[in-house]
Amino acid sequence: METLRWQDHTLYLLDQTQLPLTETYLTCTRWPAVADAIRCLAVRGAPAIGVAATYGAVLGAQKIAGETTDAAAFGDRFLAVCDALEGTRPTAVNLHWALARMRDVAAAALKTDSCTAVVGRLEAEAMRIDEADREINRRMGQFGAAELAQLGRPLTILTHCNAGALATAAFGTALGVVRALHAQGLVRMVYADETRPLLQGARLTTTELAADGIPVTLITDNMAAWTMKTKGIDAVIVGADRIAANGDTANKIGTYGVALLAAAHGIPFYVAAPVSTFDRTLEDGTGIPIEERAADEVRQCGGLATALPEISVFNPAFDVTPHEYITAIVTEHGVLHHPDSQVLHEFFRKEGI
Amino acid sequence: METLRWQDHTLYLLDQTQLPLTETYLTCTRWPAVADAIRCLAVRGAPAIGVAATYGAVLGAQKIAGETTDAAAFGDRFLAVCDALEGTRPTAVNLHWALARMRDVAAAALKTDSCTAVVGRLEAEAMRIDEADREINRRMGQFGAAELAQLGRPLTILTHCNAGALATAAFGTALGVVRALHAQGLVRMVYADETRPLLQGARLTTTELAADGIPVTLITDNMAAWTMKTKGIDAVIVGADRIAANGDTANKIGTYGVALLAAAHGIPFYVAAPVSTFDRTLEDGTGIPIEERAADEVRQCGGLATALPEISVFNPAFDVTPHEYITAIVTEHGVLHHPDSQVLHEFFRKEGI
Repeated sequence: METLRWQDHTLYLLDQTQLPLTETYLTCTRWPAVADAIRCLAVRGAPAIGVAATYGAVLGAQKIAGETTDAAAFGDRFLAVCDALEGTRPTAVNLHWALARMRDVAAAALKTDSCTAVVGRLEAEAMRIDEADREINRRMGQFGAAELAQLGRPLTILTHCNAGALATAAFGTALGVVRALHAQGLVRMVYADETRPLLQGARLTTTELAADGIPVTLITDNMAAWTMKTKGIDAVIVGADRIAANGDTANKIGTYGVALLAAAHGIPFYVAAPVSTFDRTLEDGTGIPIEERAADEVRQCGGLATALPEISVFNPAFDVTPHEYITAIVTEHGVLHHPDSQVLHEFFRKEGI
Repeated sequence: METLRWQDHTLYLLDQTQLPLTETYLTCTRWPAVADAIRCLAVRGAPAIGVAATYGAVLGAQKIAGETTDAAAFGDRFLAVCDALEGTRPTAVNLHWALARMRDVAAAALKTDSCTAVVGRLEAEAMRIDEADREINRRMGQFGAAELAQLGRPLTILTHCNAGALATAAFGTALGVVRALHAQGLVRMVYADETRPLLQGARLTTTELAADGIPVTLITDNMAAWTMKTKGIDAVIVGADRIAANGDTANKIGTYGVALLAAAHGIPFYVAAPVSTFDRTLEDGTGIPIEERAADEVRQCGGLATALPEISVFNPAFDVTPHEYITAIVTEHGVLHHPDSQVLHEFFRKEGI
């Protein structure tokens, strides 16, 4: 199973809405197909949608270059494609970050190169972002595993949603840490919240962990507290969609509750996310836009109605965990303990980010 | 919609597994049909299964009286029926309480009456328990509404699972309080957790509140924390399956987490339950047996697989909320604030229970 593959000017995307029962790939040869795939969650996970969007931008650039040789026209139309791709989902900032890099490459290259040559530069940049994501996840895994290995015993870990290989180009953020721990024989059990409404924990996390031989037990979201109380959870680890300058972290709906429950049980709570997840323009989490999705996601499960169609629904796709509840953020540059404005500021300064 | 109806020596049970899309009634003329209905959750909710089981016992007594006139044989076989009915579900204590009353009536009546007459006495007792449950719920509703009305404004309330008319003979425990508040114009909105795995919140709570014109919004379980943070929840109110002598309360899985989240947000947390829910033989909640149900309840949703069949599952049907997290327990005899061993002991003494 591969989250995405770029080959012969085509983006192949694993259709994650069909997992775990069916493994099918979407063949995207035009950029609107990529936008649709992001919107309907065929590809999801902050890093993965960042990478997918860059290839979508390349597909857009290919098409435009076939229709015009005028640099200004190319530039305008390319920006419009990037804007459309960025508008597919509002919360994850990696999408914004990755497309900003594509816009910068296009702007620079258009000054000197032909439109066709610009497409080549954009493709090279997308492949760099893709490759870097794979490497970043491995480094995060190493840093995170070193941190958690200090607990000195095989660990029982709880995770929410899917911050795994399927949420990234490969390996995973939170599950990258779990994979690195497992390679050292340090995973006793992973409890996976199923993560309603779209069940990424049930459908994706249990599937990818079981495929790697990592012990995993599925629970419904409302069992997290009782599991913490009765199963000796040593640590919670999750991914992130956007992290404000003070460490407040937007992630899949339910993460905030899990963080509060971890605090109530004295369990450390870790976030694993690449530096591209930080949004330094936001002082704190109150500025993070929270996507609300269709009511039927909640009124249905597996396509079957669980409530009458006239019932009102509140369906935020994300929530924000205040930094006070985060023990540490694991990045590809190291681990930020007790993240707050000062810790993050110092980290960015030191790393020259 | 009627949870249950006893008519012409037959128990009609609303098949709640088919709600909200289909309203069908099971016709139970023999006691094993009642046991099956309790086991498969066609009838559920601590008070409702207590009442259903008493009618199951009457059906058993009718059959035995048709086959023997010997008091000793009748008594032995009747006790076996009661044991089998009691064995259907382990956590709710009302089942035990209701069948204990039936056993007592049989034992007393068998000393003087014919087997046929004993059946009549048992039927009268079952109807008394049924009628009393309806009355008890109305009184709980009045006490609870008086308590919550003190907040002095229309309330935004969060509830978990279904402690409504469908969980009782009528009116409901937690939702009985909501109904009484609504009658006074004091309900602004009820947020209903969907309550995986069996979705009693989505299927039953939203259906019965909407039918009564009470404003209700459905959320997934993992949205409870974010809803508390962003929607101004004034109070949480839930039912109970068994309450220990110190106030520790077993209720549907997820209740413990909701209680911790309410505490973290400074939101009062109420339990509404009849006195028959108290189990004075247990000093605290550690002794309450927690039913674990089939793994496929979690690996499926609406009959469709959400995870691969080989994935391990933890599926406790209930959890225990420590009394420290309970603001008050609403009973048909009044409201117990800050319940603990002493408060409950004094309450039982005063009420002569």
